Amino acid sequence: MAKVVQLEHGEASTGSSPGINKGISILDFILRIVAVIGTLASAIAMGTTNETLPFFTQFIQFRAQYSDLPTFTFFVIANAIVSAYLILSLVPSIFHIVRSGARTGRIALVFFDSVSLALLTAGASAAAAIVYLAHKGNAKANWFAICQQFNSFCERISGALIGSFVGIVVFILLISMSTVAVSRR
Amino acid sequence: MAKVVQLEHGEASTGSSPGINKGISILDFILRIVAVIGTLASAIAMGTTNETLPFFTQFIQFRAQYSDLPTFTFFVIANAIVSAYLILSLVPSIFHIVRSGARTGRIALVFFDSVSLALLTAGASAAAAIVYLAHKGNAKANWFAICQQFNSFCERISGALIGSFVGIVVFILLISMSTVAVSRR
Repeated sequence: MAKVVQLEHGEASTGSSPGINKGISILDFILRIVAVIGTLASAIAMGTTNETLPFFTQFIQFRAQYSDLPTFTFFVIANAIVSAYLILSLVPSIFHIVRSGARTGRIALVFFDSVSLALLTAGASAAAAIVYLAHKGNAKANWFAICQQFNSFCERISGALIGSFVGIVVFILLISMSTVAVSRR
Repeated sequence: MAKVVQLEHGEASTGSSPGINKGISILDFILRIVAVIGTLASAIAMGTTNETLPFFTQFIQFRAQYSDLPTFTFFVIANAIVSAYLILSLVPSIFHIVRSGARTGRIALVFFDSVSLALLTAGASAAAAIVYLAHKGNAKANWFAICQQFNSFCERISGALIGSFVGIVVFILLISMSTVAVSRR
């Protein structure tokens, strides 16, 4: 009796799962492209903020560029690494659409996705902390807000964060979806 | 013939998987306790850094506490939320040791684990960015290093990061292990 139940269960899952798993695989592929666009846009937006913003105060002409702050350099590197990984991961993602029962590939992707999630979040929130400081400053530490001087620089670096945060949400979805797909095989 | 293969496959997996899944579940439980200790220690180490550090410069007596910098407040909150979640997650973790075939619970844990991974990484790396700034300062933005003045404060806030980074590594392991367990059921 137990064997029959096992059998029916096995049949039911081979009957219905490939369809759902194919759907998950296609959504996985689309979300990866969304995340590539987000992280690449973030890296480029931040990385090209090396323009001269000529302000004259009493004595000095200021230039603001992203590499003035090491945190922003880390942000660009993290986003570039993650988007390179995402582009590479499109290959197994396509493979999973064709062979929706594959398990090992999905498990490997979940691991690398969670590492990428951590790397991307680290870059984005470190940059966010510095952007916040640039906007608000901190009286206790004697760090002054620099955004009233470098206005368009600040707008640019704030905007660059958006793509990364889209990427973070996408990675959480990708990990959850892959786990569902793996459980169904 | 196909049905027989399906049947044998079903039998084989119910025969070998519970052992491995039980092992994964026990390791899952241990790792969660490690992460609870790490994140709680981080939250407490940072949160109790409100001691008066009396330095006299020419005119002012300084006090340094974590809540002077909003990023550190976020760090404490993020670590507190994640450790509370981890303590709650011990219940399903124990349940998975007993019933090692459970799937839905594991999938739910993977989702909440990846959200927690993102939250914890955000808190830790935002704090790390500010700690780095406190140590090194930034000449271009006119932000001065404060660690030569607030030496023990800086040591404390640097140390508080360690527990969080242990937690991040544990979460990546937990997500990968749960996915393997779900694929074996």
